[in-house]
Amino acid sequence: MLTALVERIRREGRVLPGDLLKVDGFLNHRLEPELTMRMGEAFRERFATLGVDAVDLVVTAEVSGIAPAFATAVAFGVPLVYARKNRPATMPGAVLRADAPSRTKGGTTPLFIAPDVLGPGDRALLIDDFLATGLTIGALAELIHRAGARLTGVGVVIEKSFQGGRAELDSLDVPIVALAIVDALDATRGLLDVREG
Amino acid sequence: MLTALVERIRREGRVLPGDLLKVDGFLNHRLEPELTMRMGEAFRERFATLGVDAVDLVVTAEVSGIAPAFATAVAFGVPLVYARKNRPATMPGAVLRADAPSRTKGGTTPLFIAPDVLGPGDRALLIDDFLATGLTIGALAELIHRAGARLTGVGVVIEKSFQGGRAELDSLDVPIVALAIVDALDATRGLLDVREG
Repeated sequence: MLTALVERIRREGRVLPGDLLKVDGFLNHRLEPELTMRMGEAFRERFATLGVDAVDLVVTAEVSGIAPAFATAVAFGVPLVYARKNRPATMPGAVLRADAPSRTKGGTTPLFIAPDVLGPGDRALLIDDFLATGLTIGALAELIHRAGARLTGVGVVIEKSFQGGRAELDSLDVPIVALAIVDALDATRGLLDVREG
Repeated sequence: MLTALVERIRREGRVLPGDLLKVDGFLNHRLEPELTMRMGEAFRERFATLGVDAVDLVVTAEVSGIAPAFATAVAFGVPLVYARKNRPATMPGAVLRADAPSRTKGGTTPLFIAPDVLGPGDRALLIDDFLATGLTIGALAELIHRAGARLTGVGVVIEKSFQGGRAELDSLDVPIVALAIVDALDATRGLLDVREG
């Protein structure tokens, strides 16, 4: 339970056209260390109650997933790997690649993971900032699978429940934890319906 | 002093053509929470000895700056703001923008900060993963200046001293801290000359 998060979303979240939720003050642009570290602790506690306590690494995608995933890695005491969206010059040679449609930027975003940071037998916990359509998380899960690693769970800071992501991820057959669930957004009236996950 | 960092660079750093240093195992792709948190502590200690202990927020640029800057924000107990390189749909309205040439990706990279997360009077500590030519950090310093905020110092995890960044940033007139300094890279022979900063 992370009541402070739900209160922040209710107080500061801005609804934008296209079912977008602007939470730049504490998730996507500006971060508060204490709230972020509490997200990591909350994921650890929630996954423990679901039987997920043996994790070898946390996996996320750049950019906005990095901070909550890092906090989760701190809570579990394991490394973090973040998939790159722009393959840097420092990532030559063979890489794992999967493509995900991006709602906030439009178009398709590739995700790259180097095979030397994720390998067979690794128990990977997937953490991201948002669960919307589930397509980005699906692409990350595909990378984990193709690396021969095992997905143990999916954790998101905010789930937009009306966008179908949870059903999309059903076939992964792992526990899904959302710290906050947004059930409705109405840009015209600026309405935002949020509850604890 | 962060001897463990220098040892990791010496052991795992790979020299690539174009004076690039690949440190994907602990800085740009995979992160170890303990080493990363120690970077934040090291910055806090080093800046304290230089008289920089009053900081209102830490500023960095996505992507690879986020983790060390977050650890620094934890150490100082202040928020973190990361400049965006791809302006997301959730950042409408007026923004501050500066452009920086990118060595690792080629071309020019814009940096965006929303005026509501950085304002007049804020004492900002700038943290990034690398100091090479200094142009990215210079662009971030320009954003801080244009927001009316005050730059208190610049901290980088790795300085490549032979690329002139420190001279480029001389006009900022603030303390510059590098946790590790790489004095020479030779891709042909795979040589890497690194020392504590």
